[in-house]
Amino acid sequence: MLSMGAEPRRASEWTIHGERIIDDSRRTVLSVADVELPDGVRFEQYVLRVPAAAMVVVLDDRDRVLMMWRHRFIIDRWVWELPGGYLDPGEEPAACAAREVEEETGWRPGPMTRLLAFQPMVGTIDQPNVVYLARGAERTGLAPDVNEAERIGWIPLGEVQQHILNGEIVGAGSVAGLLAVLLARTAGQL
Amino acid sequence: MLSMGAEPRRASEWTIHGERIIDDSRRTVLSVADVELPDGVRFEQYVLRVPAAAMVVVLDDRDRVLMMWRHRFIIDRWVWELPGGYLDPGEEPAACAAREVEEETGWRPGPMTRLLAFQPMVGTIDQPNVVYLARGAERTGLAPDVNEAERIGWIPLGEVQQHILNGEIVGAGSVAGLLAVLLARTAGQL
Repeated sequence: MLSMGAEPRRASEWTIHGERIIDDSRRTVLSVADVELPDGVRFEQYVLRVPAAAMVVVLDDRDRVLMMWRHRFIIDRWVWELPGGYLDPGEEPAACAAREVEEETGWRPGPMTRLLAFQPMVGTIDQPNVVYLARGAERTGLAPDVNEAERIGWIPLGEVQQHILNGEIVGAGSVAGLLAVLLARTAGQL
Repeated sequence: MLSMGAEPRRASEWTIHGERIIDDSRRTVLSVADVELPDGVRFEQYVLRVPAAAMVVVLDDRDRVLMMWRHRFIIDRWVWELPGGYLDPGEEPAACAAREVEEETGWRPGPMTRLLAFQPMVGTIDQPNVVYLARGAERTGLAPDVNEAERIGWIPLGEVQQHILNGEIVGAGSVAGLLAVLLARTAGQL
């Protein structure tokens, strides 16, 4: 692994004796890392390496956000989520973000700016995520992907925080992206 | 799987023909789900079920946040993170959050309120996460866990957004929790 920063090796850094790939399939590399902690404890743990993803807060001129009402089988719940998805090989995050919005919702987003980046679960998974803000959108005439959403909705920005508190918005990217937009709006930067 | 909501089965809901457990170890149940989409496409995908986690934004009376500077081997980067960790069996999230802060930083957090809950990667993983806000903290005299942090810092709330933009704060819970606190502060609710 390449070091990304100038930071020299420190006392708290874990020693990774190896990482054994178990499965390298379409969208996931699953491996087991052989980890040794600074205090000498040694164990194996799963590591998931997944393609980067991008998603978009599409905001219209009435301060409503484009969202998808969908079922997530792993948690067996219906939730509101921002549109977005995995980058195709070689694809730029912003291009992916715009493409996914259009495929999933039937709306083509307007000009986009980058809101933030995050990692969903930094101790187990490597999946760079970028969240964009788009101003406005136009209908393409295409039907939304039936595999993704039960329905598409424009949710008033003023209701978003309540949905987060209610547990109707739970995805990390949706929560973080919407809080970033609410913060910008409240700070008078939008 | 039990249905959590009153929502009846809808056209977009995926059919799960089964979920086969591959490994049930200390902290992770790894399985493969046999998924059929509404359009008939069928595939297998990994599912990770991980213990719930809790973390805390500890804010002192000078508007500084208690954070840990640590190396994350999976992304090979040094980052600032909120203290927190996995719930022990039967443990309440708030109790876990307070315990983890104390173990990881050597500070005992003051009164806590719940900020938000999220799921890190709702299409692959089930791990309920709760983020709390604590007002104030006192030194316990215990040394922070050498396996967790290189150093403990009190980061001015006014610098947090820049660290998110710089990529020095990337963990989903840290990003979402700090944005929630910044929003509350900006809205005059803190």
